[in-house]
Amino acid sequence: MTEPARSPEVRKSDTLKLLADEVDAWVSTASADGSPYLMPLSFLWDGESLWLSTAAKNPTSLNLQATGLLHLAIGRTRDVVLITGTAKQATPSPETADAFATKAGFDPRASNYPFFQITPTRIQTWREVNEIKDRDLLRDSRWLV
Amino acid sequence: MTEPARSPEVRKSDTLKLLADEVDAWVSTASADGSPYLMPLSFLWDGESLWLSTAAKNPTSLNLQATGLLHLAIGRTRDVVLITGTAKQATPSPETADAFATKAGFDPRASNYPFFQITPTRIQTWREVNEIKDRDLLRDSRWLV
Repeated sequence: MTEPARSPEVRKSDTLKLLADEVDAWVSTASADGSPYLMPLSFLWDGESLWLSTAAKNPTSLNLQATGLLHLAIGRTRDVVLITGTAKQATPSPETADAFATKAGFDPRASNYPFFQITPTRIQTWREVNEIKDRDLLRDSRWLV
Repeated sequence: MTEPARSPEVRKSDTLKLLADEVDAWVSTASADGSPYLMPLSFLWDGESLWLSTAAKNPTSLNLQATGLLHLAIGRTRDVVLITGTAKQATPSPETADAFATKAGFDPRASNYPFFQITPTRIQTWREVNEIKDRDLLRDSRWLV
C-alpha cells in the first residue's frame, strides 16, 4: 500500500517541483512569549529564498518581526516539504515582486504589505513513515543532495 | 470562479464533516521562548475535544507541556478549518483511545505516547477571500451557529 521510499535525488526533484507549483504554504510562527500562530499564505520560491507577504499588523507579520523564526509546510500531510527558516523584512527585486503577484493573485505593493525573505536552514521531506529516516534534504542551510 | 460564500450553517456542517473524515492536522506549537514548530499529526474529534498523541520527547509534546497552547489546521489551504485551542495531557476513555488507534493507524498506548486533549477556544473556517468576513464559527469556546 505504501510506496517504496524515494531516493534523495528524487525527493529533491519532487521538492523543487512542489516549491515551484504550490501556491500556498502553512506558515507557523510564534510570539516572543510562545503563543503559536498558523496561517496559510501564498509564497514564491526564487531558487534560494522563499518570499511571503501579509499585512504589517497581522500576527504572522508581528511574529516574524519579533522573532525572525518560522516553520512552514508545503504540500499535503502525507507528501510534505517542511522548511525551518529565518525571516527578515526585505524588498524583493521588481521581477521577484511581479512573479509573486502573478503567482499569489494579489500584489502586496498595491496594499503596502511588507515582504519577508525566508532563508531555509533546514528542509525535510517525506510521504509516509518509511521516508522519515532520511527526511533531511537541507541542513545548516546547505543541500545534502 | 469563486463559489458563493457558504451560510454559517453549511460551514458548520462542512466543518463537522472535515473533523470526522480528515485523519491528519497541521499542528502549530511554540516553545515558551517563541520558537515555532509545525508537524502533521493524526487526530480524533470526539464531538467536543480533539485528541492528539506524539512521543513525549517530540517538540510538539514538549511545547504543549510547556505552554498548553496550539493552533491547528485541518483541510486544505483553500478549504480550511483553523482551530485555536488549549491542550492538556489526559487519558482518553478506552473507547476514545480505540477510535483514535483505528483512525490514526497506530495505537499510542502500545508505545506509551502521551495523549493531549485539545479544547477549542476558537474555530474559524473559510475557503476563499469571500468567506473571510464571517469566518468565526466558535468563539470563547462557544459555537456561534
